[in-house]
Amino acid sequence: MAPAFVINGDAASPSTGRFASVYSDVQFSRIDHALPLPSVLKSPFKIVDGPRSSAAGSPDEIAKLFPNLFGQSSARLVPNDVNTLSSDQKLKIGVVLSGGQAPGGHNVISGIFDYLQDRAKGSVLYGFKGGPAGIMKCKYVVLDADYIYPYRNQGGFDMICSGRDKIETPEQFKQAEETVKKLDLDGLLVIGGDDSNTNACLLAENFWSKDLKTRVMGCPKTIDGDLKSKDVPTSFGFDTACKIDITYRISTGTFNILHVVRFHQFLLGSALDVPIYSEMIGNVMIDARSTGKYYHFVRLMGRAASHITLECALQTHPNITIIGEEVAAKQLTLKNVTDYIVDIICKRSDLGYNYGVILVPEGLIDFIPEVQHLIAELNEILAHAVVDEDGLWKKKLTNQSLQLFEFLPPAIQEQLMLERDPHGNVQVAKIETEKMLIQMVETELEKRKQMGQYNGNFKGQSHFFGYEGRCGLPTNFDAAYCYALGYGAGALLHSGKTGLISSVGNLGAPVAEWTVGGTALTSLMDVERRHGKFKPVIKKAMVELECGPFKKYESLRNEWAINNRYVSPGPIQFTGPGSDAISHTLVLELGAPA
Amino acid sequence: MAPAFVINGDAASPSTGRFASVYSDVQFSRIDHALPLPSVLKSPFKIVDGPRSSAAGSPDEIAKLFPNLFGQSSARLVPNDVNTLSSDQKLKIGVVLSGGQAPGGHNVISGIFDYLQDRAKGSVLYGFKGGPAGIMKCKYVVLDADYIYPYRNQGGFDMICSGRDKIETPEQFKQAEETVKKLDLDGLLVIGGDDSNTNACLLAENFWSKDLKTRVMGCPKTIDGDLKSKDVPTSFGFDTACKIDITYRISTGTFNILHVVRFHQFLLGSALDVPIYSEMIGNVMIDARSTGKYYHFVRLMGRAASHITLECALQTHPNITIIGEEVAAKQLTLKNVTDYIVDIICKRSDLGYNYGVILVPEGLIDFIPEVQHLIAELNEILAHAVVDEDGLWKKKLTNQSLQLFEFLPPAIQEQLMLERDPHGNVQVAKIETEKMLIQMVETELEKRKQMGQYNGNFKGQSHFFGYEGRCGLPTNFDAAYCYALGYGAGALLHSGKTGLISSVGNLGAPVAEWTVGGTALTSLMDVERRHGKFKPVIKKAMVELECGPFKKYESLRNEWAINNRYVSPGPIQFTGPGSDAISHTLVLELGAPA
Repeated sequence: MAPAFVINGDAASPSTGRFASVYSDVQFSRIDHALPLPSVLKSPFKIVDGPRSSAAGSPDEIAKLFPNLFGQSSARLVPNDVNTLSSDQKLKIGVVLSGGQAPGGHNVISGIFDYLQDRAKGSVLYGFKGGPAGIMKCKYVVLDADYIYPYRNQGGFDMICSGRDKIETPEQFKQAEETVKKLDLDGLLVIGGDDSNTNACLLAENFWSKDLKTRVMGCPKTIDGDLKSKDVPTSFGFDTACKIDITYRISTGTFNILHVVRFHQFLLGSALDVPIYSEMIGNVMIDARSTGKYYHFVRLMGRAASHITLECALQTHPNITIIGEEVAAKQLTLKNVTDYIVDIICKRSDLGYNYGVILVPEGLIDFIPEVQHLIAELNEILAHAVVDEDGLWKKKLTNQSLQLFEFLPPAIQEQLMLERDPHGNVQVAKIETEKMLIQMVETELEKRKQMGQYNGNFKGQSHFFGYEGRCGLPTNFDAAYCYALGYGAGALLHSGKTGLISSVGNLGAPVAEWTVGGTALTSLMDVERRHGKFKPVIKKAMVELECGPFKKYESLRNEWAINNRYVSPGPIQFTGPGSDAISHTLVLELGAPA
Repeated sequence: MAPAFVINGDAASPSTGRFASVYSDVQFSRIDHALPLPSVLKSPFKIVDGPRSSAAGSPDEIAKLFPNLFGQSSARLVPNDVNTLSSDQKLKIGVVLSGGQAPGGHNVISGIFDYLQDRAKGSVLYGFKGGPAGIMKCKYVVLDADYIYPYRNQGGFDMICSGRDKIETPEQFKQAEETVKKLDLDGLLVIGGDDSNTNACLLAENFWSKDLKTRVMGCPKTIDGDLKSKDVPTSFGFDTACKIDITYRISTGTFNILHVVRFHQFLLGSALDVPIYSEMIGNVMIDARSTGKYYHFVRLMGRAASHITLECALQTHPNITIIGEEVAAKQLTLKNVTDYIVDIICKRSDLGYNYGVILVPEGLIDFIPEVQHLIAELNEILAHAVVDEDGLWKKKLTNQSLQLFEFLPPAIQEQLMLERDPHGNVQVAKIETEKMLIQMVETELEKRKQMGQYNGNFKGQSHFFGYEGRCGLPTNFDAAYCYALGYGAGALLHSGKTGLISSVGNLGAPVAEWTVGGTALTSLMDVERRHGKFKPVIKKAMVELECGPFKKYESLRNEWAINNRYVSPGPIQFTGPGSDAISHTLVLELGAPA
């Protein structure tokens, strides 16, 4: 029996206040789950600066865009005899959740709240509602102990909700300035992905240039796992890890982890990051094997990079996995991808298997060079031209792109034209790539049947695992990791740092030994052409084809294709076997920190 | 780190034998999970017969169809000073899994295997591969301790796989006879849903009429929850439960439960049956609340009855739930259903909520009388006529049905015409009802916007939760319940019973106090017109609109519609809080057995 519980409520609605809700047994049992802190956060510390930083690319451009912030050092908390930060200081801090949900967001907020309680008693924490729009509209709530308590270790972003707005125009920056002045903010913590952290950096630079006292910190969050930094590992003692042959930027799953770690145990991988997707894939695999007559095409989250797909593949061993980065590197066409799938289906059919599981990243078609050209052209055309119903706009496409566009199934054509997101991207999440592939595979298999090269039965089932996985309860590992990110961000804002992103490292060790600090956001930046202009962006971390995880997958995929080596991770466990698997698997056999 | 493990292999393929696989930590930890047995199965027992039975309907027809079996008593195991069954008898028993997967199938097999080991040492258990087709083709495997071990407490049906074939024609019955003669079978256990248990009963009658020694037992399995019996509760001491005002045929979730039980605690419900679907719905709810801009339309398993949808609603408190049985009883049209949804969306929009979660049973459109007429006509026409491309076949439809057919979106028309399943049913699982509803809701909201009655923003997201939930690891409750069903079936076959379905009761009490026995399959039967002929069928248990669970839902739905009372059950836990919730919730406040 689950207890009734009063939680605060529903920031998505302007009209609601607190309301009574009920928690399930499992939700309730998580609230008081004790969160360990790294040792450095449990005793006096000082903040040590690293060497001057540069940028991930185009340093001259970045220096121009961020004249105050460019070159900043990373910062690291180290034990000290006394605290260097005054506990008498009463801070006013704002926090905002930006972009799509990932398990652990509430724990970042719990972390910074507890920091302020522990180290700057009397401080006030404001939660901006509904994402960056809340900053611009000065829509906020005071986050006190009662307000935060029911959200501890809970999934979702519903404590203050999130949004995808960006602070971009001069008017919007002005609104943000007015808000931080009105609330007299000492600091602002922006929890989000690459675009949101870029925005945080722009805000930090802007406030600095206007002589405002408000410091801005970023916190890495992306379920797509495409936020990374090359500088962080060395800054944070992962030299050993960087030098070993099998390396991997841990970047899948829930909150992004800014470290290079090696994996050795993928074959024996247990539920870790992306645990809900892997659980569902494992169930579908057992279903496929039990039924013996379906090919399940599973599309997974991952707009710009295929980390989740690769991670799920390494955990569950599907028969076929398409990694976008490989498709791009090898300049594969849609026909090539279809043939690869069809070849395996034919081989399996000869062995008596007319079933299987196929993983596809949601951004796949964006990785296919011919499609990429088409989308780039569409992005440019749609930004400037009107799409007429007679299709005259198509004349602006190059011949190659026009041919491809006409070749696509009409449903996919339509989806490509749909309204794009606020960042100007084609909404690949809305493209049902898995259904498109099923159609193409069916057509090709029919041809092969005619030619006598295939005599099996093919039935495709399509799945998209997206919304079901973003708001799950965070695992024990994610809960502790996100809490440390928030707690550490509090320390850095307290120390007056700005333009950094919160970084927690040495994750292979027990929590007590984790490192805590921040990395200059400008050091993660490059410039990129968007809407026809150069803009600063945090370079997305792609699956690296020369690195361990992909290599591991590459060495095993032929085996998985033909034989069935399915692994079913099962549901996330909070106690008992498997409940602490994550931290083990993340950094198994990781070298000790330098 | 998950251990490597050798499991037996892949009965779906004719060419494979044993192969090395790997288990996740959680899967591995479940293998040795200790399964409790009801006390009556742990000491000497005798079998006691109940009163003569009748049929669920058309007893005269059933008596004609089952001249040997009709009227059989139910049987119950009761403690005795000595065992009445000889432990020297060496039995040869076959077991088959039939139809779609449900968590716990492997435990039924473990149960009957352990019974034979414990009580009839030296017996042999044959597993027919790939469902009833395995019986007809005499495709089997000997299930020894090594073979079964890795599947203990595991999800799926992959130990011997399943299939949807039926043994129907005289030739097929002949094949089945040859198989049981060839293997010299004393008994056969058929684990399946309503159709499969009907088939088991036909086999039992057939073997009896041919003087074959092979006894046949059924075992209830259906994730749809539409297998029930009115007789079982009284037979098995549930008089108390039958008499109380709030009653409910527990029928959702994994293995069907043949008992009437009352619920009081739905508001505080925790993860129980259908736990994977409820987990996913709960995650989607938190996502909806965090994002604040989507209506999630979730289609759930449940072809003929809406038990899963109702159960998930009672566990998670969605804003809107459509119960097929209510739609049918109130003779609602598609337009009525659409208006009901749209009215709530408009009210919520006025309150500032432009998001929500809506549950729909997969069989919904089959419940709508106008659609039902259309489908009945289609079933008859498609059984006898050729569907010509010019649409001349449509002339055979009545005017009303033709109008409706032409009114449906083309994609739905197409899906209605798709190849039907071996039982002759339109494959409603393939109809994307949730997408159809989104289209209809969009159109209606647009109208209301024009009329100034709505000024919100509507964005629909569609989900189908099906294959992801059928093969999950069984909960502690399901594992124990299914094990007892199998163990008890072994005892009844040992005693020479035939034509019964395994029944385990008193589930609200500790496992030790559970009752064990069997119910006459003919007592569950009625006749029904299929393919233009009368056939014996086990009547599907529908959601009863006058019973507690629906009444509870009905009394709360307006509250859930407008306010947000979402509950997120979280992942299944095998240890710690929530891990034993199922048995509590099933029978909370159930009266003691008579």
